[in-house]
Amino acid sequence: MNRVYNFSAGPSMLPLPVLEKAASELVNYGESGMSVMEMSHRSPVYDAIIKNAEAKLRELMNIPDNYKVLFLQGGASTQFSAVPLNLIGRTGKADYIVSGQFSGKAFKEAQKMGYDVKCIATSKDTNFDRIPTVTKDMIRGDTAYLHICFNNTIYGTKYPEIPDTGDVPLVADMSSCIISEPVDVSKFGVIYAGAQKNMAPAGLTVVIVRDDLLEYCDPKAPTMLEWKTMAENGSMYNTPPCYPIYIAGLVYEWILGIGGLEEMKRRNVEKAELLYNYLDSQSYYIAPVLKSSRSMMNVTFVTGDAELDSKFAKDASKAGLVNLKGHRSVGGMRASIYNAMPKEGVAALVKFMDEFAKANPKA
Amino acid sequence: MNRVYNFSAGPSMLPLPVLEKAASELVNYGESGMSVMEMSHRSPVYDAIIKNAEAKLRELMNIPDNYKVLFLQGGASTQFSAVPLNLIGRTGKADYIVSGQFSGKAFKEAQKMGYDVKCIATSKDTNFDRIPTVTKDMIRGDTAYLHICFNNTIYGTKYPEIPDTGDVPLVADMSSCIISEPVDVSKFGVIYAGAQKNMAPAGLTVVIVRDDLLEYCDPKAPTMLEWKTMAENGSMYNTPPCYPIYIAGLVYEWILGIGGLEEMKRRNVEKAELLYNYLDSQSYYIAPVLKSSRSMMNVTFVTGDAELDSKFAKDASKAGLVNLKGHRSVGGMRASIYNAMPKEGVAALVKFMDEFAKANPKA
Repeated sequence: MNRVYNFSAGPSMLPLPVLEKAASELVNYGESGMSVMEMSHRSPVYDAIIKNAEAKLRELMNIPDNYKVLFLQGGASTQFSAVPLNLIGRTGKADYIVSGQFSGKAFKEAQKMGYDVKCIATSKDTNFDRIPTVTKDMIRGDTAYLHICFNNTIYGTKYPEIPDTGDVPLVADMSSCIISEPVDVSKFGVIYAGAQKNMAPAGLTVVIVRDDLLEYCDPKAPTMLEWKTMAENGSMYNTPPCYPIYIAGLVYEWILGIGGLEEMKRRNVEKAELLYNYLDSQSYYIAPVLKSSRSMMNVTFVTGDAELDSKFAKDASKAGLVNLKGHRSVGGMRASIYNAMPKEGVAALVKFMDEFAKANPKA
Repeated sequence: MNRVYNFSAGPSMLPLPVLEKAASELVNYGESGMSVMEMSHRSPVYDAIIKNAEAKLRELMNIPDNYKVLFLQGGASTQFSAVPLNLIGRTGKADYIVSGQFSGKAFKEAQKMGYDVKCIATSKDTNFDRIPTVTKDMIRGDTAYLHICFNNTIYGTKYPEIPDTGDVPLVADMSSCIISEPVDVSKFGVIYAGAQKNMAPAGLTVVIVRDDLLEYCDPKAPTMLEWKTMAENGSMYNTPPCYPIYIAGLVYEWILGIGGLEEMKRRNVEKAELLYNYLDSQSYYIAPVLKSSRSMMNVTFVTGDAELDSKFAKDASKAGLVNLKGHRSVGGMRASIYNAMPKEGVAALVKFMDEFAKANPKA
């Protein structure tokens, strides 16, 4: 059947059992006589699907009862606008940490809207090779929130720990690390994530928001960007992205079935260590990220020679290891090893890296 | 295999050959070694999929070259905000016709944003049983656009012809009638449609916009709602709803394969006539919509007895004719007979209606 190991940064691999189940019931779901794609979102059969997806995500992430779970559209990029629209009314200003391209976009989007926003820390001067150091005194006491990107897909960095913001609500874009390991949701005011990396096909955005933060929305905000409206309507103010929600539910069940986020983390640590240990054991490839900021999901490396980098991605692709080219703004290589990437895929990559290094000595 | 006839107003039936093809290649698309759901949206294989979908839609609708086709997220409800944000800058005011619930929502959304918007005509006083009469002199000469909902899903009405707006750009929500018949795109400034009725699973919104209308966007608008940004990035400013776009492409190919929109219209007229002719031939059921405003896609009818209506929907469901209950805001029955509903489904409905009338005489 010739499935490849797909190291794409997103959309990315989904668990094979999930895809096989989806294929088997695509034309006719259960006793419904129709595809999930054809179901009225207001029908009992679909209601059970969306409620199951929410329940399974709550179980998986141990989400406290005073948080709403929203299944939305528009990607994290839409949340770059929704975050300030929903929250800045709390105090009138907002703080951001810029640790890569997406947190930079989030910051610029809030600026564009004319708000009082401040970048309190960035690692731009070292090309985002680390998470900037942040201490509590750097955060404005009267900021409505502090926004971070918890895992930086493009650069391959991740916060080593959750920043302590005291009473200031912490807002985190977790698009590329959500449900990869247990996380204490209660430390966050808002968690949001595009689903297309660890959860589902593209077109679904999950927002987890603490109840008390639903009260500050700009009265002129587009209704579709109001978290409160979406919460009050159970994510069905309009037609939700029904099929990606269904797949997300299957993915959540798959993770629960293997043992939940503790086991998911064990597997992800094992995969990441396999790759990082290899990188640290040789000198052909360079891993540019500071060790303490390394991502468990996105592993970046370069040969130091742009032509070799290019050859690497091409040769790897021929060997069934695809989408290893680094982001167009960075170059080099990037292996995204999300939940659905099996250990065998990472082992095959390490083997290929070693063979490539031997076959292509540097000048 | 026990597929039912699904009369849902949306999401709704998709062509069986499309579903079967999607199922057959869900786990492994072509030679790619992966699911369409897993593909990087920036990969050549996905690029071919989205470009094919756009090309096929252009061919199907005969879209002029000076119109952009955008594949977006958020549903028509998000466009209720995007339309004023993108267009009102042209003159500072906007006119709306309110012919049902969704056009009412679009109007209120523009009002909410604080703009000078005017409802120039409505059929609210007759419970939206018709399209209101509009003449050119009712439209403000300096309006940035006139917004209409071309087919009203809930009430079962449709504009008998395209209103003549002169130089004023006509903006039409075509969610429930797009690609059901040929339409002269050049008569519109903007056409938009949620995909989940006639085109694809929920989660995709198609916007067709004339080039000159890309220049008026509010500088503080959420970037994701800027048509120009989306147009300049080929709908890939961020990750698009990849899988629904792929299904839409298959649906477009299916329609082209049967003969395009002329043949689609012939089939849709045939189905609608079957049902309306039956309704006009008897007195048990009442079709509340004015004949000249009848929709070809959504056919509403009542028995005049709420208990009988309720029994009808339940008994029909048992007979494999599902989702015939009218919208919760209207009651009665509604048969949505979109492109993918076969003639046999409508014939089965008419037969059931006749049997139900005989078996359940009115008191």
